[in-house]
Amino acid sequence: MPEQPELTIQGWGPAGPSTTTETDDGLSSALPKAARRYLSKELGWSPRSTPPVAVADISLAPSRLPDEARARFVELLGEENVRTDRESRLRRAGGKSYLDLLRRREGDASDAPDAVVLPGTTEETAALLTACSELGVVVVPFGGGTSVVGGLAGVDPDDRPAVALDLGRMSSVQSLDIPSSLVTVGPGMRGPALEEELSRDGLTFGHLPQSWEFATLGGYAATRSAGQNSTGVGRFDELVTGLTLATPSGVLELGHPPATAAGPDLLGLALGSEGTLGVITELTLRVRPKPTSCSYEGWSFRSWPAGLAALQHLARHDLLPDIVRLSDQDETRANLLMASGTGARALRGTLKTRGHGDGCLLVLGWEGLPTLVRARMKAAASLLRDGGAIRLGRRVGESWKSHRFSAPYLRDKLMDAGLLVETLETAATWSKLPTVYDAVRRALRESLTRDGRRPLIMSHVSHGYPTGASLYVTVLADRDDDLPIQQWLTAKRAATDALLAAGGTLTHHHAVGADHRPWMEREVGPLGVEVLRAVKERLDPQGICNPGVLLPE
Amino acid sequence: MPEQPELTIQGWGPAGPSTTTETDDGLSSALPKAARRYLSKELGWSPRSTPPVAVADISLAPSRLPDEARARFVELLGEENVRTDRESRLRRAGGKSYLDLLRRREGDASDAPDAVVLPGTTEETAALLTACSELGVVVVPFGGGTSVVGGLAGVDPDDRPAVALDLGRMSSVQSLDIPSSLVTVGPGMRGPALEEELSRDGLTFGHLPQSWEFATLGGYAATRSAGQNSTGVGRFDELVTGLTLATPSGVLELGHPPATAAGPDLLGLALGSEGTLGVITELTLRVRPKPTSCSYEGWSFRSWPAGLAALQHLARHDLLPDIVRLSDQDETRANLLMASGTGARALRGTLKTRGHGDGCLLVLGWEGLPTLVRARMKAAASLLRDGGAIRLGRRVGESWKSHRFSAPYLRDKLMDAGLLVETLETAATWSKLPTVYDAVRRALRESLTRDGRRPLIMSHVSHGYPTGASLYVTVLADRDDDLPIQQWLTAKRAATDALLAAGGTLTHHHAVGADHRPWMEREVGPLGVEVLRAVKERLDPQGICNPGVLLPE
Repeated sequence: MPEQPELTIQGWGPAGPSTTTETDDGLSSALPKAARRYLSKELGWSPRSTPPVAVADISLAPSRLPDEARARFVELLGEENVRTDRESRLRRAGGKSYLDLLRRREGDASDAPDAVVLPGTTEETAALLTACSELGVVVVPFGGGTSVVGGLAGVDPDDRPAVALDLGRMSSVQSLDIPSSLVTVGPGMRGPALEEELSRDGLTFGHLPQSWEFATLGGYAATRSAGQNSTGVGRFDELVTGLTLATPSGVLELGHPPATAAGPDLLGLALGSEGTLGVITELTLRVRPKPTSCSYEGWSFRSWPAGLAALQHLARHDLLPDIVRLSDQDETRANLLMASGTGARALRGTLKTRGHGDGCLLVLGWEGLPTLVRARMKAAASLLRDGGAIRLGRRVGESWKSHRFSAPYLRDKLMDAGLLVETLETAATWSKLPTVYDAVRRALRESLTRDGRRPLIMSHVSHGYPTGASLYVTVLADRDDDLPIQQWLTAKRAATDALLAAGGTLTHHHAVGADHRPWMEREVGPLGVEVLRAVKERLDPQGICNPGVLLPE
Repeated sequence: MPEQPELTIQGWGPAGPSTTTETDDGLSSALPKAARRYLSKELGWSPRSTPPVAVADISLAPSRLPDEARARFVELLGEENVRTDRESRLRRAGGKSYLDLLRRREGDASDAPDAVVLPGTTEETAALLTACSELGVVVVPFGGGTSVVGGLAGVDPDDRPAVALDLGRMSSVQSLDIPSSLVTVGPGMRGPALEEELSRDGLTFGHLPQSWEFATLGGYAATRSAGQNSTGVGRFDELVTGLTLATPSGVLELGHPPATAAGPDLLGLALGSEGTLGVITELTLRVRPKPTSCSYEGWSFRSWPAGLAALQHLARHDLLPDIVRLSDQDETRANLLMASGTGARALRGTLKTRGHGDGCLLVLGWEGLPTLVRARMKAAASLLRDGGAIRLGRRVGESWKSHRFSAPYLRDKLMDAGLLVETLETAATWSKLPTVYDAVRRALRESLTRDGRRPLIMSHVSHGYPTGASLYVTVLADRDDDLPIQQWLTAKRAATDALLAAGGTLTHHHAVGADHRPWMEREVGPLGVEVLRAVKERLDPQGICNPGVLLPE
């Protein structure tokens, strides 16, 4: 099994000997000059050096774990699996949202757990949860620590001591059923390790979110993740066929592949439960043969509405590719500026000549059996051309593919240079999507414009469905260094209110966490919240399971 | 909107002026002589006339609906929508399982409701549920009345009066969102009416279970139905994107197309809830363009294991067709005997000559864009031939298609002639399917063999998935006219114990109802049952919603 590197404490990427971000000329190496100039002009921002505090200067309160609890945990798990050292606690403090990074960069680790516990089995996890329930210790499950919605906030209304329940010891393949295309894995396993094991049998799992290098399979399940290939491969929740959930009230074994009509879908209740009902300790997932043909290609539309209309057309005829990614004009412009070299210059020239100088790039990825890929591509190409698209060829597609995991690395550089950098996402039906798009942009623009500075709002459709699509929005703005958290919270609130009012969903693939919980009642209604509460009270009567997330206060 | 005919009281088919089944020479017109002879020999059975009692002779206890309740219902719904007449009550008594028909044919309607109420809106339904909760009146939602698992049993541990809540007044299209491929409908609507409305816009819904002529869309949702095309089109639960559930505690609006990560899937909790949490009063469903190419074809395998292996091969390469139906040797033999004419004779000859005289028929259906259908068929054909299959051409496929809704009609004739006729179904992973198949057959054979008589057990795979398939079993046997109910209950118990022990699911598409509830705890575990109970207690604290089904006593 490949090593699973830990994330650096104050940003993104594998933790190295020094965890301080390199700020000297970080931005010039990361962004071409034209892109830096464009950003400065668009945002009314001048690059400045705003490095994080040294990791050694991050302040961490002493552990509040009672001796009795510690003794009980050691009895259950052994000394080496109960940790209260500074490094262990710091590494499990919060997630990787912009707000998380702001706090960590400022030296604040007030959300760090009082201890880290590492059970090795379902039984140990269940025993631990029972113990924590009796002792009044809050449990925050910790997978990869990549949440961008405050999923690891651990905020307890009763302010009880909290432990991070690290799933790193349960991170291997348990069994592989090749005829049934099913693999059973521990929740702490990550995508790269799983893909490596599967590839020995010519198989793949194919879930590729941006957090792929660090996020865990259990985390994907707990948050209903979607990967970049999910248009074709399916969302993570569609790939889970079975799941074990250890709760303070016992262990649930859920799911029955391939399908069942035996009552309501309890598996669907565990997926997306974000640690509030218990801890996922095992997963059974659908795998598939490695595609024998993979083809990535770029297309261009003259406008965003034309691009959306063409995708909608593909969608209703079941011709969506495995990967679909339509950038709006602002994102297309930025992406073209980011690309350097003669190829990029030629592309910009071509687009301008053909009247697409201010157009929208579409990246499509096709995977599967060569004959079917060819037939699908041909049928789709005809619809796309009918919709006014021009084909840009494979280079654009391959270029996107080679940068598919790079955005969070770039974020650190941009934050070092004084920028607000955050994303949000939603989904809506094809009918409502244009309104949602307009509403979110307007809200963000109004909230983040002041004193001659304004945000750059870049959007793309990242997942297509027959009935609608997701919308992913990246925001850049000059950071308010006095009140950076307040600046984003205000913008996020405005954007969320706007997207919900326009008919978007609260989150398409980032989950609810602490950040979205104020809107959860609007999303599922007061009675929907009550149903979730009833389930939680049955499984977690003392409310120790990840109390700060999902359910509104 | 086309008329929605009611079902005959004692069997299958539209109610006519006389509801007595015609028994004279019914069997000879329904079954070719060779098939009758084969059945007699296989089963050790001689056709005899065992007609149902006259409808007028069915005994029905007086309505126990309290005057206070009646008055309250009339106030809410109007006089014409509160019915206690004999005909209304009889027509809503139970469903259409073999056990239901046995009872009705013997003149027993002890499971009839005390009244029938017909709300016209979500609001009226919610008000009615609140009233029933206060008054202690049990509510059994009634769609098409086609349950084959005792879903309408209405057995209340407290023996309170019961009403059938008929959804017939909520049976029209509410709205159609063509760009988003979504239609919103009332739960009382049936497939034929929906298809007729959609066809005006070149659209189809495509859910085609055997009960298609009579079952309702709300019923499909409440039971997690699967249709004959579900391998391609998707199970019913996959086609629901939104749902309104009126409960005694208020109204839930669930679902968020196209997808969401905002917490656990509450929509999946309402699907399959079988009326135990409330009443589905509105549904939003995914529709699609009518396929421009439809191709049905027959194939043959030398053996059942060879057929299963080939399907599994198609499944893992995402090459399953839209309709897949692999009959085992016993079902194939019976189907070939049922078919008459020179074409059928020629087919039997061909199969014999090619060494498939005792083989397994496979029917495949392909739908969609012509170029894609061709590409998929070609790729699949190559895998099928590698698996030893021979292609029989379109006639076999078309023949299956033309008889796709006929089995329940035939059942009446067979019952008239003294036969036990029942079906059961399950699903399992590809790895476990052969064991489940053997176990079910053995259990049924052992239970139904006595005194030189033995059952005919015919099975087919009716739905394919990447990870496994469903198994549908039809049983014929000489009926024990002294204890017919006991005879089937004993066989069903043995078969269900066996399939669960072998790794099958309790039900793939018939739901739990009253018949499967004794095994529900084995299916989802004691804690799973407790979770369902917690949800029910929150939404239906007085336990008035369809108390006799789903949850174990």
